[in-house]
Parts: sequence; structure tokens; C-alpha cells
Amino acid sequence: MAKKEEKEQGKKVTFNIDKDVNFSEWYSDIVDKAELADLRYNLKGFIVFRPWSVMVMEKMYDILEQDLQQRGHVPAWFPSLIQDENLKKEARHVEGFSPEVFWVQGKGEEQGLKFAMRPTSETAMYPMYALWIRGYKDLPLKIYQRGQVWRYETKATRPFIRSREFYWIEAHDCFASEEEARKQVQEDIEITANLMHALAIPILHLKRPEWDKFAGALETYAADSLMPDGRMIQQPSTHLLGQNFAKAFGILFKDKEGKENYVWQTCFGPAVSRIFASLISVNGDSKGLILPFIVAPVQVIIIPIFSDQTKAKVVKKCEDISKALNKEGIKTKIDMKEVSPGEKFFFWEMKGVPLRLEIGEKELSGKITLFLRDNKTRMQVSEKNIAETLMKQGLELDERLRKKNEKWFKESIVECKTQNDIKKAIESKKIARCNFCSINNDGEKCAAVVEKQLAGFVRGSLASKQEKTFSDGKCVICGKKANAVVYIGKSY
Amino acid sequence: MAKKEEKEQGKKVTFNIDKDVNFSEWYSDIVDKAELADLRYNLKGFIVFRPWSVMVMEKMYDILEQDLQQRGHVPAWFPSLIQDENLKKEARHVEGFSPEVFWVQGKGEEQGLKFAMRPTSETAMYPMYALWIRGYKDLPLKIYQRGQVWRYETKATRPFIRSREFYWIEAHDCFASEEEARKQVQEDIEITANLMHALAIPILHLKRPEWDKFAGALETYAADSLMPDGRMIQQPSTHLLGQNFAKAFGILFKDKEGKENYVWQTCFGPAVSRIFASLISVNGDSKGLILPFIVAPVQVIIIPIFSDQTKAKVVKKCEDISKALNKEGIKTKIDMKEVSPGEKFFFWEMKGVPLRLEIGEKELSGKITLFLRDNKTRMQVSEKNIAETLMKQGLELDERLRKKNEKWFKESIVECKTQNDIKKAIESKKIARCNFCSINNDGEKCAAVVEKQLAGFVRGSLASKQEKTFSDGKCVICGKKANAVVYIGKSY
Repeated sequence: MAKKEEKEQGKKVTFNIDKDVNFSEWYSDIVDKAELADLRYNLKGFIVFRPWSVMVMEKMYDILEQDLQQRGHVPAWFPSLIQDENLKKEARHVEGFSPEVFWVQGKGEEQGLKFAMRPTSETAMYPMYALWIRGYKDLPLKIYQRGQVWRYETKATRPFIRSREFYWIEAHDCFASEEEARKQVQEDIEITANLMHALAIPILHLKRPEWDKFAGALETYAADSLMPDGRMIQQPSTHLLGQNFAKAFGILFKDKEGKENYVWQTCFGPAVSRIFASLISVNGDSKGLILPFIVAPVQVIIIPIFSDQTKAKVVKKCEDISKALNKEGIKTKIDMKEVSPGEKFFFWEMKGVPLRLEIGEKELSGKITLFLRDNKTRMQVSEKNIAETLMKQGLELDERLRKKNEKWFKESIVECKTQNDIKKAIESKKIARCNFCSINNDGEKCAAVVEKQLAGFVRGSLASKQEKTFSDGKCVICGKKANAVVYIGKSY
Repeated sequence: MAKKEEKEQGKKVTFNIDKDVNFSEWYSDIVDKAELADLRYNLKGFIVFRPWSVMVMEKMYDILEQDLQQRGHVPAWFPSLIQDENLKKEARHVEGFSPEVFWVQGKGEEQGLKFAMRPTSETAMYPMYALWIRGYKDLPLKIYQRGQVWRYETKATRPFIRSREFYWIEAHDCFASEEEARKQVQEDIEITANLMHALAIPILHLKRPEWDKFAGALETYAADSLMPDGRMIQQPSTHLLGQNFAKAFGILFKDKEGKENYVWQTCFGPAVSRIFASLISVNGDSKGLILPFIVAPVQVIIIPIFSDQTKAKVVKKCEDISKALNKEGIKTKIDMKEVSPGEKFFFWEMKGVPLRLEIGEKELSGKITLFLRDNKTRMQVSEKNIAETLMKQGLELDERLRKKNEKWFKESIVECKTQNDIKKAIESKKIARCNFCSINNDGEKCAAVVEKQLAGFVRGSLASKQEKTFSDGKCVICGKKANAVVYIGKSY
């Protein structure tokens, strides 16, 4: 039935899809039914991000920006358009990004020129850094900006996962030494871990293979999470840029001895809209979304249950409780729509609201019925100290989500000794962990075999430590001595 | 002396310009010295918004978004690019905005097509509204988005005042009736008034003349503030769109009787980057910026004053107080740079930090020296309850700014009975208030005379009430019976 008709006839919107069986359908349907995004915008690859997702993503921005600022970053707004000539300054960078650029035509005096809509902002920011940085006292320079970037994606676009305009933060930092830059990479990894922890999304922090680095970087680190269909998805990445860009853009500083040196740089790019894709996919269930308490736009939904006789008293009670909760900073809403309580239960479960209060005649006595979205249990809570109780319940719910997801993620990583093991792992929606000759350039041939014959991608080695190879210690592809333990999976 | 040299030689940056005497120099210099924006970005009309201004503007966004959300608005993110065909749907709108559009070239399958970088989002949002709105239960629909827009300005650009990319919020609302839409216009005026009150910027809320309306609107209301050079500057405007766009985009709803009607629409566009221009210009003085306490990125700067003997104790005291203040949510910073206290005083006065604590040996006893940026007075405050004291002092400082600015603004509005009066008013950097035949289309000829002969612009009549004409009650230009009292001034 067309959605228009459904709405007009006041029929309840049903949702019941097992994400582990048919993730693709689950994902498309929940994006539509929960009104997360609208794909009907009449420009290929562009979508409308609707309020229910935007309110969650704004909260994610808050978490990230607070963490960045506490670590000494300050926000700036750089132009969205970049001169063609800037883009060309770092050779590998331009090669990597040029095919993806949307070009804007110059007008008036600039007729005939063209400007890039930023696909990323290195080439907008670094010419300014070259003007701003003079001496060691100007370092470290730690600046981020929140906003969108544009990339002409030729791969299939999917809402939140990949679109031609997406929302992120990009932090671009300059240091006096390699050591400090490497410390920043660790700090970026911590910021990522903090956010992912808050959102209950398990991740592997990997160092990407040489052949899969960011265009222009020395080293790339990225957090990979897993989708229910077994695809690995790249989440925040951080790049050790070394002095490549500093040399291309002339970012020099005088050290204490008065000697001029190039700065060391890092950049870090958490894509908020893409993290949202993992957030809903990892946490949701067959009834719809489950939003962690900490980011839910509505943390507590109150459903009044009344007859004509009890209506006034019940509504009053709902309002009192709602006021008490909102006063304590718990985002609470009363659903007064003219539909049955059952339909409201269903609707808000689908929307992922973590806590539900059901308030009827029985609840007037001071014992309130609380429903927990994640494990679908009901309990009685006292009206006294209800804000405190619900805050605690909300945080416990988030902790349960984390535990459940961590367990699933851990079980999804399988040690593989043969190519056949890898194939089986990938087919059963898991991540293969195996010995590999190298993630330097000499491993690229074996990675090509993985891609061609096993339909998997070598995502890299753990960022946190050099893992020891296991069993025979030989590369699972070429049989030579393995120098790395890598993680292999399907990807988008 | 070039800035680079100044910095390298550690010379103190001096600032001492009377904004009432030479506003243009004051403005350019403070934008540069306080590091509010950098105009050296190599794309005409585009500037880099630097951290010191961005932190203030982020706070302004917070104030606006909180107010909008409390009044039932929800945030969304619509695409930055718009199909050519969408833009063409409302005839007056396309006529108004087409010359200002930056065009993006289609690629791949879309080779040969062109897309507009949004100059404003009506034509991106309303096709979606037509899909989303079905019946009266979907109304009101109140959505806003924060972000930037792009306009190919041919007038001279000035940082924050006018540039080819600027930052704003646009709220686009739909209602079932004209009455509700008009109520929303009043609500938008209140939101504007709340923000401007917080920022201590006096404004006149005016209904714009027919010939100066937003392209496609029935009526336009705007808040005008005044710059120290006597130019009026348009701040947030709100538009009663009527049903023009609803008809162009087919935004229909079924009412309770099942009858299909077009919605009534409003849109509201507070340009945060432009309000910032008024904020600094109205509040600043010859020593630099004065930032209201409520939006200052650093609300309290602590300057330690010590000898080698007292250093440890003084620094400890600074840290204790800084911690106590930050804990209470007062943004506090200790300046530990290796320059003299006097130089630090000067620097932070120039940056506009509202409160300064000077902590030396004398202050170890518990009596702390507080300096107030606006009236440059020093006083002793007790270390006990210092957070409470400074919060109070901060809010009082904001109140003093408001009173001072309101007084100046009130004195800047002059009743004019003749064309010569108007000319004199404008020449003395004031706003002329006078009788005028009409702000409907039949007044346009007289407005042209004002523009040509008096170098002034008819900005409109009070939005809040119909003012009575005064003295002879005749239009100051044509001498016919005046139907309006209007405000005339120079503009950007």
C-alpha cells in the first residue's frame, strides 16, 4: 500500500523485519518508516536528512566537539569552494580526489575559472596555515570544522552510508615534531573510541595497508565497524600526513634556535552521518530502531492510558512527570495523538525511544510502569525520584547495548588458517583474522588475490599493537613468512 | 610594520582607533588584529572565519536553536545543491535569485545539466514538504536548518557584513491558516528580539516597503540595526509567504472536512555571521572588542603577576580559581605567555574578554582584583563565592552594554519634517523618521527621490504598530497625505 494511503486511512505502520536475515530490507525500511531520511530528493546521490536522524547527529556533534575542544582544538569555518590551483599542489592528493570533485563555474571577472566544492579541506586550510604559523610558539595548531563535503561518488549511494554530500568534522593539526604528530593520532583514536563507546558501536582500530592510505598521507588509521550483513564499514579515520602537505603548501616554522622547519601534520575525519548508519544498524532489532539513551532525541516517551472518566487525572499526572523529567534535562514527550495506546507503543518502539512510561489509572497511586526498549521488559518504578531512576535505567540500557554488541562483534572475528576458512568466514557474515605477508606495498599482490578470489578486502592490522602471527606463521595467500596479522571482510 | 615582523620581534600589537571617528578603519583593523576573519583566502568574496569569531557565533547558534526548538521547530539538513528546474518554479523568486546563483556542472549521467548552490532553500525544501504534508494533522510543520548559503554578490564584500558564502539559520514553516502564519511572523520577531537583547544590539523591527520585499513573499519584516558610521544594516528578516510557494510546489493538505487547501507559509532567516558584524560594531570601543559575557569564548581571563619568589604560589592561586570558575560553567583561561602583564591586559582588552582577574602576591590573601572591560573600572572581590560574584558581574556588564546602546540608538532616531532635515540626519550618521505617502507600490517614486537626492533608503514602517503621522501629516517628499511613518537611513 502506498504510504500516502496508509497515512490518510490512519492505518498503523507496521515494522517487523529480522535484520540478521534480511539486513538490506531492514535498513531501507527503517530509514523510511522512522523518517530518518528521504531519498526522493530530485538530485542523484543527494538525500534529505530528516529531523529524527538530525537530532541524533547533532548530539553526536556535541560529543565530538566537546572532546575535541577539551583536547585543545578550536573551531573555524573555511570556505566550501577551493581554487583549482590549490587542489593541484599535493600530487597524490589531487590524483586521489580530482575524479570526485563537483566543479563550480566562475562568474563575472572569474568567467572561465572553475572552483572545487571541497571534497575535504586540506587544500583550503593549509595555504592559510602557511600564513598563520611563523614560529614554534604558534604550535601546536589544532583546528577543526564541522560541516559537509561533496564527492561525486560513482559507487552506489546508500542513505547515511555513502552519498554525494555528507556531514562530518575535519580536524587539521600542525606540530613541531613527528613525535607530537604521532601522539595526536593516538588522541584521535581515543576520541573515536569515546564516541563509539557512547553509541555502543564496537570497532576495530586498524592501520590501513600501504595501498589503501588516504591520498597524500604517510599512514592511515581507521576504525572499522561491522554491519549485520557482514560488511565492514570504515568509521573515523585519522592520517599521519607527515610533512608532505607542509612542503607542498610551505608551512614552515622557526624553532627555538631560529632554524626553519616544516611542520608535521595530522588530520582526522569523523563522518557523523556515516557513524549514524552503524549506530542504527548495530543497535536496532526486528521492531525497529533502538537509540542509546545518551543520544535519543526523545529519551522518555509517556503514553497516557485513560477512559473519559480518568482522562483529566491521568493527563495531569503525565504532565507532572514530564515536567519533572524535562527539568532534570531528560528529554521527555507525552504522546497525545488520538490513536490507541498499543499503536503508540508500536510507533515509539519503531522510532527507538529507549524508555517508555505507561500511565493509567493504576499509576495514579505513585507506582509507574516503565518499559525498556532493548530487552522489552516492564517494571514498576516509584514516582518519587523518578528522574534519578530513569537516568540510571537509561545508562544501564546503554551498557546492556554495549555488552551485547561487543559479544556479537567478538564472535564475529574468526581466526582463519586457509583461504577456504576466509571464504567461509566471509560467507557467514564474519571478519577473517589471518596471517598475511605484509601490509607494505609488497603485500598488495596477495590483497588482490583476496579481493578477486575471496571477495574480501584486507582492512589492515591492529593500530594498538603488533599482533603475533599464529600457527605456521605463513601468509595465508602466498605462503611466505607472514609479517602481519590482518583483518579481512566484505565492504561497501 | 608588516604583521609577520611584529610577531617575530614579539612586539605588542597596539589598537587604538575611535570607531565613531573612523569606523571603517576600526572595523577592518579589529577583524584583523582580534583574528576574527582572514581575508587572504584566494577566492574573491570568500573569507576564513577564524576561531575567535566562530566560538561566539556557535554560541549565537545555540541561543537561536534553543529558542526555535522550544517553539516547536525541529532541525533538518537539506541538500546544498538544487536542480535548475526547482529554482524556476516560483516566478518572482527565480527572478530575484538567479543572478546570484553559483552553478555546479553535472557529471557522468548528468553531463550538461547544472545545479544551483542554494542561495536560500525554499526550492530545495518545498518539493519535499509537498510529499510530507497530507492532512491537517501534519500541520503546523516547523523545520529549520543551520548552515551556509552561497550568493554571487556583485556589491563590495565586507567580512561578516556581506560575503559570497555566509552562515545562517533558515526556518521554513507551514500552517493551515493565514492567522497562524501571521502568528509565526510575530514569533520570529520575538526570537530575533531575544537574541538581539542577549547581544545588546538595539534594533528597529520594520515592515519593508512593497518594493523591497523578499522575492516571492507577501510581506517582509526585518530587524534593522545601526552601525557606528550611520549605516542601517538588515538583521534577521521573516517573510509571510502566503500561498505563493504552496501553489508553485503543490503543498496541499486536507482539512477536517476533507477539503484540499494550500498551506500558508513563513520563512525566517537569521544570518549569524552578519549579526556578528553588528555585535562587534555596536559593542566595541577604541581599545577593541567588547564581547557580551553571555557569548564570550573566554568570559574571564586570569593574569598572573609574580616575581621568581612568588611564582609558585601565584600560579597555584590562579589555577585554583580557574578550576572553581570552569566548574561552575564560566569559561576561564589563565594567560601564561612570557610577556609582561601590561601587554596581556592590552591583548585581552582588544579581544573583548568581559572580565579580567589580576592575581599577584597581594591577591593571595583572598581579595582578588577584578577589571571590567566595558567601563574599565577595577574593584576588589572576595575569593569566597567568586563564581557567583563573577556571574553576577558578567550579567551586569551585559545590562550596562544594553542600556548604553539603547540610549545611543534612541538618540540616533531623529524626527524629520523636511528633506533638508533628512539630509542632515543622514549626514550626521542618524536615522530619519518622517511622514511618507505610502509603503505600498505607489510610494516607490518618492523612495526613488530619497535614494537619489538624499542618499538614503526607505527601510519601512514599524512592524509592531501603525504609528500616527505627525506635524502637518504630509509626505516629506511629494507633499500628499502621508499614510505611513517611515525610517530612512544609509545602508550597505
